[in-house]
Parts: sequence; structure tokens; C-alpha cells
Amino acid sequence: MAGLKLFTLNGNLPLAKKVAEEVGLPLSPASVKHFADGEIQIDLDDSVRGADVFVIQPVSAPVNENLMELLIMIDALRRASAHRINVVVPYYGYARADRKARSREPITAKLIANLLEMDGIDRFVAVDLHADQLQGFFDIPVDHLKAKNLFADYFASKHFGDNVVVVAPDHSGTKRARSLAELLHAPIAIIDKREEDTIGVIGDVKGKHAIIIDDIIDTGNSVVEAYGALKTAGVLDIYAAATHPVFSKGAAARLATLDLQEIVVTDTIEVAPENHLPNLVTLSVGKMLGQAIHLISTNQSIHSLFERKD
Amino acid sequence: MAGLKLFTLNGNLPLAKKVAEEVGLPLSPASVKHFADGEIQIDLDDSVRGADVFVIQPVSAPVNENLMELLIMIDALRRASAHRINVVVPYYGYARADRKARSREPITAKLIANLLEMDGIDRFVAVDLHADQLQGFFDIPVDHLKAKNLFADYFASKHFGDNVVVVAPDHSGTKRARSLAELLHAPIAIIDKREEDTIGVIGDVKGKHAIIIDDIIDTGNSVVEAYGALKTAGVLDIYAAATHPVFSKGAAARLATLDLQEIVVTDTIEVAPENHLPNLVTLSVGKMLGQAIHLISTNQSIHSLFERKD
Amino acid sequence: MAGLKLFTLNGNLPLAKKVAEEVGLPLSPASVKHFADGEIQIDLDDSVRGADVFVIQPVSAPVNENLMELLIMIDALRRASAHRINVVVPYYGYARADRKARSREPITAKLIANLLEMDGIDRFVAVDLHADQLQGFFDIPVDHLKAKNLFADYFASKHFGDNVVVVAPDHSGTKRARSLAELLHAPIAIIDKREEDTIGVIGDVKGKHAIIIDDIIDTGNSVVEAYGALKTAGVLDIYAAATHPVFSKGAAARLATLDLQEIVVTDTIEVAPENHLPNLVTLSVGKMLGQAIHLISTNQSIHSLFERKD
Amino acid sequence: MAGLKLFTLNGNLPLAKKVAEEVGLPLSPASVKHFADGEIQIDLDDSVRGADVFVIQPVSAPVNENLMELLIMIDALRRASAHRINVVVPYYGYARADRKARSREPITAKLIANLLEMDGIDRFVAVDLHADQLQGFFDIPVDHLKAKNLFADYFASKHFGDNVVVVAPDHSGTKRARSLAELLHAPIAIIDKREEDTIGVIGDVKGKHAIIIDDIIDTGNSVVEAYGALKTAGVLDIYAAATHPVFSKGAAARLATLDLQEIVVTDTIEVAPENHLPNLVTLSVGKMLGQAIHLISTNQSIHSLFERKD
Amino acid sequence: MAGLKLFTLNGNLPLAKKVAEEVGLPLSPASVKHFADGEIQIDLDDSVRGADVFVIQPVSAPVNENLMELLIMIDALRRASAHRINVVVPYYGYARADRKARSREPITAKLIANLLEMDGIDRFVAVDLHADQLQGFFDIPVDHLKAKNLFADYFASKHFGDNVVVVAPDHSGTKRARSLAELLHAPIAIIDKREEDTIGVIGDVKGKHAIIIDDIIDTGNSVVEAYGALKTAGVLDIYAAATHPVFSKGAAARLATLDLQEIVVTDTIEVAPENHLPNLVTLSVGKMLGQAIHLISTNQSIHSLFERKD
Amino acid sequence: MAGLKLFTLNGNLPLAKKVAEEVGLPLSPASVKHFADGEIQIDLDDSVRGADVFVIQPVSAPVNENLMELLIMIDALRRASAHRINVVVPYYGYARADRKARSREPITAKLIANLLEMDGIDRFVAVDLHADQLQGFFDIPVDHLKAKNLFADYFASKHFGDNVVVVAPDHSGTKRARSLAELLHAPIAIIDKREEDTIGVIGDVKGKHAIIIDDIIDTGNSVVEAYGALKTAGVLDIYAAATHPVFSKGAAARLATLDLQEIVVTDTIEVAPENHLPNLVTLSVGKMLGQAIHLISTNQSIHSLFERKD
Repeated sequence: MAGLKLFTLNGNLPLAKKVAEEVGLPLSPASVKHFADGEIQIDLDDSVRGADVFVIQPVSAPVNENLMELLIMIDALRRASAHRINVVVPYYGYARADRKARSREPITAKLIANLLEMDGIDRFVAVDLHADQLQGFFDIPVDHLKAKNLFADYFASKHFGDNVVVVAPDHSGTKRARSLAELLHAPIAIIDKREEDTIGVIGDVKGKHAIIIDDIIDTGNSVVEAYGALKTAGVLDIYAAATHPVFSKGAAARLATLDLQEIVVTDTIEVAPENHLPNLVTLSVGKMLGQAIHLISTNQSIHSLFERKD
Repeated sequence: MAGLKLFTLNGNLPLAKKVAEEVGLPLSPASVKHFADGEIQIDLDDSVRGADVFVIQPVSAPVNENLMELLIMIDALRRASAHRINVVVPYYGYARADRKARSREPITAKLIANLLEMDGIDRFVAVDLHADQLQGFFDIPVDHLKAKNLFADYFASKHFGDNVVVVAPDHSGTKRARSLAELLHAPIAIIDKREEDTIGVIGDVKGKHAIIIDDIIDTGNSVVEAYGALKTAGVLDIYAAATHPVFSKGAAARLATLDLQEIVVTDTIEVAPENHLPNLVTLSVGKMLGQAIHLISTNQSIHSLFERKD
Repeated sequence: MAGLKLFTLNGNLPLAKKVAEEVGLPLSPASVKHFADGEIQIDLDDSVRGADVFVIQPVSAPVNENLMELLIMIDALRRASAHRINVVVPYYGYARADRKARSREPITAKLIANLLEMDGIDRFVAVDLHADQLQGFFDIPVDHLKAKNLFADYFASKHFGDNVVVVAPDHSGTKRARSLAELLHAPIAIIDKREEDTIGVIGDVKGKHAIIIDDIIDTGNSVVEAYGALKTAGVLDIYAAATHPVFSKGAAARLATLDLQEIVVTDTIEVAPENHLPNLVTLSVGKMLGQAIHLISTNQSIHSLFERKD
Repeated sequence: MAGLKLFTLNGNLPLAKKVAEEVGLPLSPASVKHFADGEIQIDLDDSVRGADVFVIQPVSAPVNENLMELLIMIDALRRASAHRINVVVPYYGYARADRKARSREPITAKLIANLLEMDGIDRFVAVDLHADQLQGFFDIPVDHLKAKNLFADYFASKHFGDNVVVVAPDHSGTKRARSLAELLHAPIAIIDKREEDTIGVIGDVKGKHAIIIDDIIDTGNSVVEAYGALKTAGVLDIYAAATHPVFSKGAAARLATLDLQEIVVTDTIEVAPENHLPNLVTLSVGKMLGQAIHLISTNQSIHSLFERKD
Repeated sequence: MAGLKLFTLNGNLPLAKKVAEEVGLPLSPASVKHFADGEIQIDLDDSVRGADVFVIQPVSAPVNENLMELLIMIDALRRASAHRINVVVPYYGYARADRKARSREPITAKLIANLLEMDGIDRFVAVDLHADQLQGFFDIPVDHLKAKNLFADYFASKHFGDNVVVVAPDHSGTKRARSLAELLHAPIAIIDKREEDTIGVIGDVKGKHAIIIDDIIDTGNSVVEAYGALKTAGVLDIYAAATHPVFSKGAAARLATLDLQEIVVTDTIEVAPENHLPNLVTLSVGKMLGQAIHLISTNQSIHSLFERKD
Repeated sequence: MAGLKLFTLNGNLPLAKKVAEEVGLPLSPASVKHFADGEIQIDLDDSVRGADVFVIQPVSAPVNENLMELLIMIDALRRASAHRINVVVPYYGYARADRKARSREPITAKLIANLLEMDGIDRFVAVDLHADQLQGFFDIPVDHLKAKNLFADYFASKHFGDNVVVVAPDHSGTKRARSLAELLHAPIAIIDKREEDTIGVIGDVKGKHAIIIDDIIDTGNSVVEAYGALKTAGVLDIYAAATHPVFSKGAAARLATLDLQEIVVTDTIEVAPENHLPNLVTLSVGKMLGQAIHLISTNQSIHSLFERKD
């Protein structure tokens, strides 16, 4: 085997550099051009024959451009005789389209998995998948990394004592909230949005520091709604936390209107400068990804990454 | 096309008969032998050339025997030139093994989907999948039927008025509870089990009729725990409801010790006689499945099955 | 079978309408939303169970958005039990990336074919593929329609007599030029661009009407170069013709500087208003596509579409 | 590569231990639980990343449980990044269902092969397949080990001289009988069972030691019939030999009624204690399997295992 | 569907004509050219869109040419939008290469099955496969027709009474011999060829009409050897029968030296004029194949073809 | 890995020997028998377990025999546990059948690619493919070697100065001609064959040395036509050059009638003795192939093979 090679595309260069630094290898050179007609061309400058290749690319906005960059890169690597193609996708675009909620809907999250597998990847490395079941959308090995220790360590350093509650912004987020609450030895509450109704809070939040935890902040509407319900329910103050800062158009403006202590996210997605709110705190997954690549490429278990000493 | 044919195997004969009655067709004859050495032999007595075949078989206990019956049946149908092979699986065994919760776990629910697709099925018809994402484990059409209207109608007929709460027995069940509560115009509560802790209730349940809703009752332990927490929290009385009555060894005895008003299930799984507790109420999915088969085989949308007039 | 259904996405609505008119069927309703975060959501308003579906969508700019719309639509159709999924792709984006010209290049045109086949299409209908070999990138039936009769009829109506030459703008276009010349009973010439050199013309063009024929006008640079060489060689006047008006950024400005009699293209790609040069002539492939869909859906040979009576 | 790892499941622990001893490696720890509802859960205690894994598991009774254990184990190994998954299946359940003998029969032996290949195995190691053609049911490498040298050596040690005949218990077993007879320099005879008729013997057996050789003893009925025909034909005494002691319900009782000198089998299937007849002789395939694993894992030919010095 | 179409290639035109006559349809026109450089070109003269196509082609000598004709034809049919591609292969070349008899042998019979399936056939119709297990080499429906009734009727018409024995020319043919003997109410005998030895006969043949039955007569050596052994054993006279008259180079000369009453074969392979020995009798499978095609194309069971009234 | 092994079949033994010499390894022993009935049997004499195997075999006449040898060899290698199967196909038979030129044609060049991929090859090494797009017929790595440097060096050594023109014998060959002309710093001309017309020359050839360059000389008819047109146009003298000397029946006789200075070909195909015209010059691709195998097997880029110092 000709050894380990790291590549990145245009999805998240700052994160890729952090990962490469942790791995202790430079990013291999590749040029990615977007032509005037919208087509993408990728050139690999070095040979990858026999190499164990890792490509770092979130499927974040522009979602379809980033996905196509990744698919084309894989095609190039496969035809160029890479030994093993590992893709590291810190943010899995379309992950929420993971089921048919209504008749005749696509399941785009599965489509993405199929496109990648068909294209010849050998391994998929992900961070905080929207649903754990997405692992089963693949038949190849999936290494699913979790950012919850980053959040737990960060909030533990605030020394809130018993006066904190972890809040699920919707019904499907209860388990995620409980998982973080476990690490913080805290109770949970759930924002209960009913179809025909106003939004309520289930659980005791009065006078507490509330941490709204989600996997994604997209439009910010969930945070806005949770914020309102929590304020009404008399919380002390509010933190919004989420792994993936999608921050789609309008989100930053929406969040800026709230009196949030902090918005805590990770760098799985690069936050555009215009979305850098003053109260935005970014935790980096770069070290975790770098360690994972090191362990994977040397055939070691990645289990150690998730162990936690209280 | 030589028309529609219905088959059943040994999984749930009473349900298959109800389905066939609703469709208005007899079950086609097939013999299924389990030899002394444990091997299964299937013989189809009639030609299925060109037929649109539906095979009704839950993957319930004995799980592996029922699954192999189904896989062997599909092999026989495919080789016998069936035009289209639809499998109707009212209960999806192994559905809970739908993700890697720990290192090196299998994702058996995906394995089952792969085995069925590889074997050549054209369509999968399911009832109340453990997770909606299981639809995406398949690339063929999945018709996902839901029993929630059956439960809603049943509990609505109790006329509890406002004095009812729908209870999720664990964190991941919050969404299912909200979904039923929506139909009953009721609030929800969540049983909050913490790793190191006693079990609490989040939400207001005092003095109310509590309906614990789950997809599966397996060992009955979740019901026992929820029962205890709800009693401590001062509920009026308790109903346990779930689509799939797995009732594995010891479940009936466990449930018999509780003062449950009713245990309400469906017939996706045939309940063994020894598990027929006096307070067991069984709602049938037979009519819904029969209507679905009729609609599917005549290329009509099954959407109408889920519409509901309050 | 539930009959024929036509769908379009956002690629080329005017063409889709012309096709539908020729077929004599309305376009079936489907909504395609591009969310703020860049993800695409598609909803089919009507049932497609058992239908013979044709989706009309060029993979033109925005190339990756249009491709993803198509892939997601196919996923939705397949899961919604369409009987047969035919995709009509008037312009095949990435078609020029059909070989490895240098080491470690992707073959993106094959990737596109693989993505579509994996996604479950049953038939691919194309117009004037960049290379005939692209048909072999698929293993499913490909119906390859040709616009050359449209061009031949158009130029024949100019009554140039013997005083016309068909010009290939590069070496690989010689065969295409000969093919049109055959229909016009005209000679050909070739623009001969050498790596280190000035651009020459091979063949006799002096004092003639020159028709530069290509499959694609993208940046317009080829036309500019051919124009210069032909002017130097003393032609009477110059027409530029091509099936696919990609017209990427800067193309219109570039072409506007030339004294071209006409720029003759088809409507496989919708030309943006800002690119509507005064001398642009658009021939429609709508009728041909509509006739092809009619013939295909009724299991008739499409051979008749290409027959030509001089 | 992280080296060689051996695993076993519940099929035949004593054999797996003998194999491991021959290989000189311990069996890697894995837990296999059968839950009360019949589902199987497998946990691998050690990392298998990059390992060359051999899983030893006969598909013997309980056939479907053992098969599912194997399929689930393979899923776990594949997702856990094993480098190469070799399955060692000393007894191939359903091997006799290898053709359609009547209309509309399944070919379950091919189904088993398809399930295993689809699940991602890289190699199949078998012992004395019911039909040699089963090798062709796979497209991956199959290493087919043969126990005939074990039988030949065992019977040669009896020093029967010329006074021995090898008997095929049915028409399809003639070649197997000739193959053993060749090693013993003996003649053969065939039990000739006609549809409407009594059972005869073709060939000269009078006054000889008769060795009935088969691949499988299942119900024991074939041995009973052969025994009767041979006694009638005046043999001196009778040995029954077969590689795979399926011994399904009733077999031991049936065989116990006969005056057989010995019943000679191998340990590809673990014989239940209640079937340990006094005249049962078990030859072990453990050493041969262990040597095969050693040769395979070091990329050496296994041909040497079958060479025989008279 | 556009109806049923029959095609033939160069393998066996006389048989194809008989089949077409029985079906009551003309053979559809197709031209098959073998160019000077050895390449094959196939042109279909009529549209096959939507048609249920049957291609009749034995894979007999020239084996590789005939196989390639078939593979190329299938490619053409698939790309030309045939609805269903059924191949009728009266003789399955390479069928004897159905297992690895020695290390590192190919299993060419499986390769052939894989080539055909990969190429997109929907059904395989065969006559007297060398081994029944070849059915399992396919995952699509295989209709396996048997010529044994033709032979049984033919020999029954000889009125040999009890004075006849059916002879298997080798050990693996015992079952086939018993199968024909059953229909003739006759005993069997086996030619017993030992590695180091002379050739013997097992069973009673003295003074009887002996019918040597095999699936293939290739070099004729088996018949020569069986003839010698039977003559030595004192038979009355000898018939040689086999379904597939391969008659490879030298076979006719070899058979001509024997005093055979008759050589009875079928027309699955066209016998070259130089091999038409005076004692050659040819039974036609044309009617059986024609009836099978009729039944298959109208979705009827072919079971009736094999029923037999004594 | 057990190292590199080279095999050849019957396609081109002299070339295989040259390649092996360059690699510095003997050809591994394998026997290839063509039986009297036309079937091919292949035996590998040595173990290939874990080996990186290269099989050298052009698909030249007898095309179908050579292709089947290759397919059967691959099956044997795969089943014999070769680690990586690389096929080196100096001449790609059927390459010209790479598109549907008329309705209902097969695309046999894609069929060949599919057959090889399905059979399990890991890499395809080719020389001067008829169309570059054939690379995209594969999804595995294709190493496409080019002989143009051999031709350029050879003709450069003639020192024609400026008095030379490179001639494309048909419209699709213009690019190939320009490519060689570039290396020789020469102009190009095109033979312009019109459907209804005489054959003309486009470009200036008068008084020059003309080098007709093609990829294949098959029947020789193209050369004959080009020769005539060039003579008419007043060239000084004529060389015919092509990579692949197919020389099908009649070609040599046809070429012998022309006054060609030289016919320059390579040894991708072995020229039969009767086709060794006195003016035939053969350049060997053996060294290039040997170097490529060395580079590939040691995971080095083959880019260096194509670099050229003027």
C-alpha cells in the first residue's frame, strides 16, 4: 500500500486543515474548477495508486454542488486506482429526508447513500447523524462520530450546578436531550408543539438555565419557538446548542432577535462571515476527526474516542 | 397477467384469513413442511405464472423460522415465474436492531431488508414500523400502513373527555405519543428513565386516564416501569396500548401483576392462548391490509386508508 | 397499466410544454422546492402507481441542481410504484467529460449514466449526444434523437445552391459536418487548430456561405476562432449552428462581436433572455420529442422520425 | 493487515475448538444471545478492523437458527471493517434442495449461497458438499475439502483384503461409492430402488464386508433399506459410513434396530448425546480444517491436503 | 404488450423451424453476419419494442461462436426495448464444466449462466441439462424440459418385452438410466470403469437387448467402452441413446466401427451430414419446445408436457 | 501478497514473451485446450492465491475464441483466489461496435466490457482504443496506453523535413491524424468520402510524403481508397500506418496491389505469416506494456510512459 492520503474539496477548508494537522499529513493537492456553464472539473495532481484515501467534504450549502464535487472526486479516485476510498462527511445534507412522511415523497437521504456506495466508496465517516438509522442506509462500514462530549465538556465548564435543564425542541429530539442531560446530570424538558395549538413545555424549567439541544440549526424557527415557550415558562436564561450550523437564509437575523446567552455549534459546517453572531461559540470537531482517521487507517478501534471520564 | 393470488405461511393464519376475506379471494394452497432435521420445504400447488402475488407473513416468533419460510417462499415464487412478488409483513422482526448502538453491532433490520430485496421481492407492505427510517432500508416501493386510527377510534369510544393523557414509555416514543394524542385532542407525558436514577414522569398526569402507547410490547418491562411511575404520579387508571403484541416469555405473567384497565393490541402477531390475559383487547388490522392489497393490485393510491374524519 | 404520465422539473418548462402539447396530454402536477439551505424537495400531487412515466429535464445550467432534481424525482417515482420510468434529457450535461484525457481525470459523463441507472430508470431519451458512444454508457434502452434534419431543412430553405460549405470547428467535429453536408449536398472544411500554431482552414471555403456546425456552443470561443480563420480564408458570410445553446457566461458578448449572419440553435436548453442576440434563430425539438414519446409509449419504432425525403 | 482471527457461533463448539487448536490461535470472544422473542443478538468483544476472519459454523439443526446466526455475524463483521470474511461451513444445510425436482419448488441451496454472498463473504470453505455443483452456486472462491481420505484410512486399517464391497445406497451415490472403492481397491454395488418395486442390489456382494457410503445420514431410512437389501443378498456384515451425521428425530432408534458393525461418521455436525449409539465411530475433520485455514490465510495451495500416499 | 416473437440464430435452423411451426408463428427476420476478421454483427429487421421474445439457439459447435451470437443478440434485444427476453437453449455447451474437479479449474457452466443473466435474459429454457443443479446456476426462472418420454415411447414401440436392460455408461449416469428404465419397466446395469483397471459391468445383462442411455454423445469413447464391456458380458444386441448428439471430430468414425442396432438421438443439435450414420435415428424435440413456448407465453404451467400415460 | 504473476493465452504469444522479458518474470504455466467439440479447457499449473495477476490476451482473430479463453481464464483465477486480476488486452475486438448506428443494433463493445467486469477483473489495460470513450464503458480502472510515440519516433527517423502530411483516412480519424501530425510538426489532410460521390482529399498533399494513419487496418479497403485519392491528388509517395494489424481475409492481397512505401503497424496483433508483405514494418509495444505492468504492480503512475522529449 502506498500509504495514507488526505484530500479536501470546497465544502469546509478550515476544518479540513485542522483535521490534516491532527493527522500530521498535508492535504494532497487537487484542483476543483466550476466552469462558467456550471460543470465541475476535478484534477488530482499526484498519483493515488494503492493509497488509502480520505476525502473530507460536508454536504452543506451549496448542497448539490458539494455533493457533486464529492461524487466526481470519488469517480476520479476509483479510476485512478486508489486502494481504499474513505469519505468523511461531517454534515450529511438531506439527512432529514430519511422517510416517506407523506405519499409519494422521495427518501433523499437513502438516495445519497446509494449514490455514494454505487460510486465505489469503501467507508463512510459521519458526525452526529440526524437519525442513527442512517447507518443502515449503507452496507459498507460507517464510522459514526458523536460530538456530545464536546458539548458536555463545554457546558460542564459553566458550573451551573443543579440549576440547569436540557430541552428538546421537538418530540423527536427527546432522546438526544436525555443523552446530553445524562452527561450533565441534569433533568430534561420537551417543547410540545401541537398541530392545532399553542406551543407548551413539558417538564420543569422555571428559574433554570435552559440548554436547547438539537442536531441542526437550519432556519432557526425551532429555536425561536422553543425560546418563546421557555420564556413564558419562566426560565432563567437560554443557550441554544446544535452540532450542525446550517444557518440557512434568514436564520442569523431570526436568532439575533432573541436574548440567547450563547449559540453553541461545531465546525462541521463552515459558518459564513455574515452569520457570525456575537454570541456564537464554535467547538471544533477537527481533533476528533483527525484522531478517527489515524485510528481507522491503522486498523484500530475508534471506540476510545467516545469514552468519557467524568 | 394471470391475476391476483394470496398466500400465507405459518406466521399468522387467522390474520391471513381475515385479509383474504376482505380481498374477496381464497388463500392459494401451498404446503410448508418443517422436516425432522429442521429444514423447511415449500410446495406451491397451483401455477403462479404471471400472477400478482401477495404473501402474508409476519416475522414474529419463531422469528428465524418465519423469516426462512418467507425467503424460501420468495425463491419458489420467483423461479415459478410470478409476475410480481409483494410481501406483506405485519410485524417486522429484528426491527429494533436498526442501528449500531455500540461498536461492532450488526444492523440486522437492514440485513433482513437486504435478504428480501436480494431474493427478488417487488414490494414490501408493513404495519407500524419501529422507526420510519426502515422504509429507506429498501429501494423498492414500501407501503407503510399505520394502526393509529384503530387506536384513536377505540379510545375515542371511551369518552374520556379532557381527562386523558397519552404517555410515551421512553424518550424515543415521544413522537408516537404525540401522534396519537393529536387524534384524541389530549396532552402527552413522557416516562423519563435516567441511567443512574429512578424513573420519573415528565408532564402532567395526576388524576387522569393514562394511555401508555408503544409500537411493541415485548418483555413487558417498559410497561411495568411506566406503570410504576404513573401510579406514583397519581394517575386515575392506566391503559397499555401497542401495535405489536410480541409478548415474549414472561411478559404475560409480568403484565398480569399490574392493575391495568386494558391491554390494547392488534393482531399483526397472533397471541398465543397462554398469553390471552382477561384484560387483553385485540383490534384487527385485517380489514386495513385487505383494503391495501385491493388498492395496490389495482394501481390505486393507498392514501385514502389513512384519511380520517373526526 | 394506469397509462402515460408526463412530468417536468425546472430545467426547461417551455420545451416541456411544447412536448406535452404534441403528446396531447397535460403535464402532471409536481412541486419542486429549493429550500433556503439548498436542499430540494419534490412532491408528486397525483398517484403514479402503474403509470408509464416520462420526465423531461435537461441537465443544463444550473447543471448540478437540475441533475439532483432529476435524481430525486426518480427516487420518488420508483418508491411511488411507477411502472416504467423514462427520462427525457434533451441536453446531457457533463457529456464532454466522456474519457480520461489526462491521468486521474474522472469520466463524469459515465458517472451521470451510472447515477441514473442505479436510481432505477428504465429508458433514457437523448438528443444529439456529444459522442455516439454515450449510448453505451447505459445498459438500458437509449433512444437517441437527432436534430440534423431540423438544421438541414432550415438551411435548405436558404437556397444557397452550390455556394455553401459546412465547416467543422475542430478535428473531432469532422464527421458531424460531413453528416449535415450530406443532407445539403455540400462540401466540408475543417478548422485546423494546432497546439503551437495559428489556426488554419483545411478545405475550400473562398467566396462561399460557411455553416459552422457543432453540437454545443458553450463559451463561444470555438466559433470565434473558426470565424477568424474563415474570414481570413475569404468566405462570403458565416452561419454558426449548434444543437445545444449552453451559452455560458460571456458567450453572448463574445458572439455579439462577430458579424455572423445567424446563430442557429435548438431549444434543448432554454436560452436566458440576456442571451437572446438579434441574430439568434431557435428551432424547436419539441415536436420530435413529443412524437418520440408517443411512439415509445405505444411500443412503436422511432425509426420513422429520422427518415427523410429529399 | 491486523492478522488472522477465528470465531465460532453455536453450531459446533467442540469442532471449532479442535480447529483452533490445529491453527494455534484461540477462538476470538463473541457473545451470541437468543432473546425470549426469538431474535438473535451478536456482540464482538474485540476489534476486527483489517483482520482476516474465519467463522466456523455448520448449518445443522437447528438449521434456521444456525444460518441466521451466521448471516448476522457476517453483517457485524462487515460493518466492523473486517478485511476478509471467510466462512467455514462443515455441513451445508439445505444442500439437498439443489434443483427443482418438481414444478414450483424453490432451490434453497442456491438461496443459501445467495444470502451469504449478498451478505459480503469473501470465501466459502465446505466439507463434502452433497453435489459438487454447489461450488458453482457461488462466484467467490470455494475451498471444497473432502473427508474421503479419513474414511479410506479408517477402513484400510480393518484389513478386509479383497473381501469388501463399497455400496451406494441409491443411484445418485454411485460415483461417491466408486471414489471410496478406488482408495480401497474394492468393487462397488448399488442399491437399486424402483418406484413400483422391491429394492434390489446390483453388483456382487455375497459373503463380503459391505460398506454403505453416503454423504449424509438423516432419517436413517436409506441405511435401513440398504441394510435389508444387502442382508437378503447375503453379505457377511455391514458398515454404514457418512460424512454428515444429521441424525434427525427417530434416526438413532431406527439405526439401533439394525445389526450394523459400525456407523462411521465425522464431526462436521455435533452428534447429540442421545444419538451416541454404541457402534458409532466419529472421525474428526478438525485437523483438516485447521490445516486448510492455515494454508488459506498464508496464501498457500490447499491441494496438499488431498494428496494421498497409498 | 406487442405480442410474441420468435428468433433463431445460426445454431440449429431446422429445429427452430419445427418449433416455429408448432407455435404457429414465423421466425422473425434477423441477419447474423460473421465478418472476415471474426466479429459477429446482428441486425434485427423488425421492431421488438414491448415484445415477448424467444430466441432459439443451442450452444453447440462452433460453441464459442454460437454463444457469442446469443450474447450479442440479447444485447441488441435489450437495447431495442424487448419486453421479455426468453432464451431457448436446447443444448447447453460447457455444461460438463459444472464443478472444480481439480484445483484452479474454472466452472465454465456457471460462467455461461452469469454471462446470460448479466446480459439481461428473463428466462432460460433448457432440454436435459447435464446435471439438474444447473438450474440453480440461474436466479431467473428456468424451464427444464426433458426428452425421456421421447426415448421411452420410441423404445416401447420395439416391444422388447422383459428382455431389455437400460445401461448407464458411467457411475454418474445411474440415476438417468434408472429414470428411463422406470418408464420401460426394465432393470438397469452400470458400466464400472475403474482407474487402474479394465472395464466391467455391474448388473445382469446377459442375452438382453441393452440400451445405453446418456445425455451426450461427444467423442463416442464412452459408447465404445460400454459396447466392449457389454459384448464381453454377453448381451443380445446394443442400442446407444443420448439426447444431445455432439458428435465431435472422430465420433462418427468411432461409432461406425461398432455393431450397434441403432444410435438414437434428438435434434437439440443439428447433426452434420458427414455424421449421418446409417443406423442413426433422430427424435425431434421441436414439438415439445413449441408447446412449451406456447404455454410459457400464455402464462400456463408447462407441467402437462411431462405427464405420461403408460 | 504472493507477488506478481504473468499469464498469456493463445492470442499473441510472441508479444507476451516480449512483455515478460521486459517485466523480468517468466510467463506462469497454464494449459489451454480446445476440445474437438469446440469447448475450451484451462488449467493453471501453479497456485495464484493472493497473487497480483496480469493476463495478456488480445481479442483478435479468432475473436470469439480468444474472448472466451479470456473469460474462462478470469473465472479460473477468481475461483483460485487471485488477489487482483489485471487483463492486458492489446487489441480490443468489437471496439468498433461502440454505438447504435442504426435501430436495433447491439453495442457489442459495451457487452465485452460488461462481460469482463461481471467476471471479476480489477483492471483493464488497453492500447490505442478505437474511441477514447471506451474507457467509460468500464467502471474499474482502465490504463490506456498509446502507441503514437512509437509511430512519431519511427517517422521522425525518416527525416522528411517539411515535405510530409499526415492523412486521416476518414472523417472520424481527423483527431488521430492531428495528434500524430503534432508530434511530427506536420500538416494534416482528410480523405473525404461522400455517400453518393467520388472520394476527395481535403487539405494540401501535392508532392508530399503522405502518412495515412488509422487505428486499425482490417479489410484494407480504407487504405485502398485513401491511396487512390492521394495518388490522384499528386502525392510524392504514401505510407500506411495503423496500430492494430487486423488484416482480415483478403487484406494482404489488396494492399499488395498498391505501391505503398511501407505499411507500419505494431505487434498488438500477431500477423499471420501469409500476411507478411515485404513492405510491412512492425513496431513492438512489448516494452511499453512491460513497463506499464511494472509501474502498475508497484503502484506507480504510468504517466511517465507518455511523456515525450522532442
